[in-house]
Amino acid sequence: MAQRVVPRTLKGFQDHLPAKAIQRLRLLEKLVPLVERYGFVPLDSPAVEHLDVLLGSGGEGANKELFRFESPEEEPVALRFDLTVPFARLLAQYPAELKPPFRRYAFGPVWRADKPGPGRYRQFTQFDFDHAGTADVAVDAEICSLMCEAMRAVGVEEHRLHVNSRRAMDALLARCGVADAEGQKAVLRVIDKLDKVGVPNVRLELGPGRVDESGDKIKGLGLDAAVIDRIAAALAIPRGTRAEVVASVREFLGGTGADAVAELEELDESLRVLGVDDAHGVFDPSLARGLEYYTGPVFEMKLPAAPQFGTVMAGGRYDGLVERFTPNALAATGGSIGVDRLLAALESLAEAPLPASTVQAMIVVFKGVPKARYLEMAAELRRAGVNTEVFFGKKKAGVTEQLAHANARGVPVAVIAGEDELARGEIAVKDLLAGAAAREGIEDRDAYLEAAKAGQQTIARTRMVDYVKELLARR
Amino acid sequence: MAQRVVPRTLKGFQDHLPAKAIQRLRLLEKLVPLVERYGFVPLDSPAVEHLDVLLGSGGEGANKELFRFESPEEEPVALRFDLTVPFARLLAQYPAELKPPFRRYAFGPVWRADKPGPGRYRQFTQFDFDHAGTADVAVDAEICSLMCEAMRAVGVEEHRLHVNSRRAMDALLARCGVADAEGQKAVLRVIDKLDKVGVPNVRLELGPGRVDESGDKIKGLGLDAAVIDRIAAALAIPRGTRAEVVASVREFLGGTGADAVAELEELDESLRVLGVDDAHGVFDPSLARGLEYYTGPVFEMKLPAAPQFGTVMAGGRYDGLVERFTPNALAATGGSIGVDRLLAALESLAEAPLPASTVQAMIVVFKGVPKARYLEMAAELRRAGVNTEVFFGKKKAGVTEQLAHANARGVPVAVIAGEDELARGEIAVKDLLAGAAAREGIEDRDAYLEAAKAGQQTIARTRMVDYVKELLARR
Repeated sequence: MAQRVVPRTLKGFQDHLPAKAIQRLRLLEKLVPLVERYGFVPLDSPAVEHLDVLLGSGGEGANKELFRFESPEEEPVALRFDLTVPFARLLAQYPAELKPPFRRYAFGPVWRADKPGPGRYRQFTQFDFDHAGTADVAVDAEICSLMCEAMRAVGVEEHRLHVNSRRAMDALLARCGVADAEGQKAVLRVIDKLDKVGVPNVRLELGPGRVDESGDKIKGLGLDAAVIDRIAAALAIPRGTRAEVVASVREFLGGTGADAVAELEELDESLRVLGVDDAHGVFDPSLARGLEYYTGPVFEMKLPAAPQFGTVMAGGRYDGLVERFTPNALAATGGSIGVDRLLAALESLAEAPLPASTVQAMIVVFKGVPKARYLEMAAELRRAGVNTEVFFGKKKAGVTEQLAHANARGVPVAVIAGEDELARGEIAVKDLLAGAAAREGIEDRDAYLEAAKAGQQTIARTRMVDYVKELLARR
Repeated sequence: MAQRVVPRTLKGFQDHLPAKAIQRLRLLEKLVPLVERYGFVPLDSPAVEHLDVLLGSGGEGANKELFRFESPEEEPVALRFDLTVPFARLLAQYPAELKPPFRRYAFGPVWRADKPGPGRYRQFTQFDFDHAGTADVAVDAEICSLMCEAMRAVGVEEHRLHVNSRRAMDALLARCGVADAEGQKAVLRVIDKLDKVGVPNVRLELGPGRVDESGDKIKGLGLDAAVIDRIAAALAIPRGTRAEVVASVREFLGGTGADAVAELEELDESLRVLGVDDAHGVFDPSLARGLEYYTGPVFEMKLPAAPQFGTVMAGGRYDGLVERFTPNALAATGGSIGVDRLLAALESLAEAPLPASTVQAMIVVFKGVPKARYLEMAAELRRAGVNTEVFFGKKKAGVTEQLAHANARGVPVAVIAGEDELARGEIAVKDLLAGAAAREGIEDRDAYLEAAKAGQQTIARTRMVDYVKELLARR
């Protein structure tokens, strides 16, 4: 026989064992009906795309680290690195079927051949929702509202969506004395680092430059001190309700940038109507991340109770992406949920460990009883909607070993029925979680064995389904 | 600007536009709770694996056409070609967490770099459920029962699961005079073609050989005519209830192969207890496909009303796969649903075209009305659980164009409210499907316009949610 292969996961990739896989599926099951309620319809495309589709004909996106290979037809192809580029391809390829206005959702794995790190994987799941066909910021407000509802749907009442607008940012920078588009982009790239490096270092990078911690020289933009002061003042515009921030921005702009102010006002009103209050949707004039790529409003979802996870959802308005494929410009906006990062955040916020099984009742198997008797029980329980497993494992596994197996996975209920019980028309049903709770902390052996019986009840075989459902309903 | 990229799908791959994507998701949403009821828990692994994991150290599976490439660490890797090999890796890699008995389900894309053809894609979705840790055929019966329930869950009452057993087949062949394992495998490979080439050609291939339609010579096994007669008689064992087939097999075996008969009997009894009757689960002694690979019972799900789709689910008992990774042998059995093929079959069996949208209500937008009014309506409808989209498209799109947009996607309800209606506290709600039905076949213009008004009703704005829900409930 051939040599054994060492079972191992590829570097930068992850296996999802049951606890994680269950949590992931349950999250997706909450997100799907939510995005459908907002009018998004599903759309799906393959994992593999032509390289020029992913990168543009001139390799505009060539800085992306891709998993590249060749198709059987020897064309250069790669695994997709996001779901947005494939969406743009589909819009251009099926103009009749996907006629704008069109809003779709999609979720699935994407791949990046980056250097992996803690929480950074080479394959991860994105859940995207985008609307193509209008420049109206009412739709951006819908995306924001959806993101907040998604947080509520997964039980995180304490969440904060930071919202800014490329248009407002450009108006503010123009007012500060940076009027040309290239200069504005350069400033945005520096502001983008605000969270990481702090205001003093941002000031240095806007001016003479600085030497970073590793000793590398960072070239400064060489702006005048007066301009830098004004930019710092813009970034320091006091936070408050969205209306207060709009008022401050208007004051700062001193009559310029009227369209930017109007956009913020409309966004505020739309958010209000959709139920996004000032505690959950905040205007943040210092939010610059991604602004260079986006063309209108941008949003980032943060969790104040779990700041270490950073941004768990993000999005914004983008134009021009479809233009890679077609001359017909198409205004678009959308959001993306970083499913793996959100799951990690939810796990850290959870009060109890995640369940490692979806099984609700395990049927213990005894020698001498025909397997068909246990299959019958399983069929009855399943018909009643109970997730049921019969212990089909090692032939010599005794009751204790079988119950330990169920306990290790957090299965809440065990059904125990040997030859004698069945002959009497009886079975025992054990509440495993109650048993585990009763045993906790007991050191005396007899007391322990006594406690281990907690939650075990002998009942008529005919009452099995009702009794198991009762026990489960109490959880 | 760089040259435009032609938007195109990679050869052999497929995009799922909304109708297909919706159908696929709804199918998965039915399968997940079903497999969980049977006690299977989810498990997930990456799309990319080390090449030796997929093929074995000696390249045992090297005949598989894979999408191969190199990891950033320059290791040979490939996209997975099924979900069974990754499951075997996980079992070997996480012996504590996935301690047998362990039953898992998994679904997702798999890739094969085969020559594509009608209905044959290079990326397709599998939905697998497997149990590791017992040789008990009661579990095989559970897999069979699950497959039948899955067909019922998707509304196909007319389905037939063909069941056979490698053990029974070996006993039958031994009785026919083919006693050695290698000879039995060779015969099984020929029988495997029975459906395609028919009995006379199978007889030729078991004997002297034959020339096929393309003129190629197929070498025969050179068996004696008497042996071939007996094999043909075994394949012709009359069909009937499972008990009748078992009786015929027992008679044919004339006292040999007692363990094979016992296995069939136990399988029959387990199936009966689980609710799989003789109409839906049949013993088929000629089922040979895959038998060479499997070690016990095998199953194939066919749809008598859509035979052109062949096998939509399949499975069987296999041992030895985990042995690629670990010396600890592990008996396993499982089933796999070919999601794309099943969807194609369901589509061909469906009486109505598939819906192309999940949107239930579209709100028509009028100039002069603040968008916030429409967002408010959408928020109300969504809170009531109605999938709602506001038409945010071309600014100059009139009511007719907006309604046509909704009609084209099969959206059932439109909400129509201009400035005047809203000022009166009213809105119009239109039952779009009723309107479409009323217009059908009418050629006179006035009659057509009159009919087009069918199903439109003016109601108080305050009754919107109730009225829309009423309309939807009627569908």
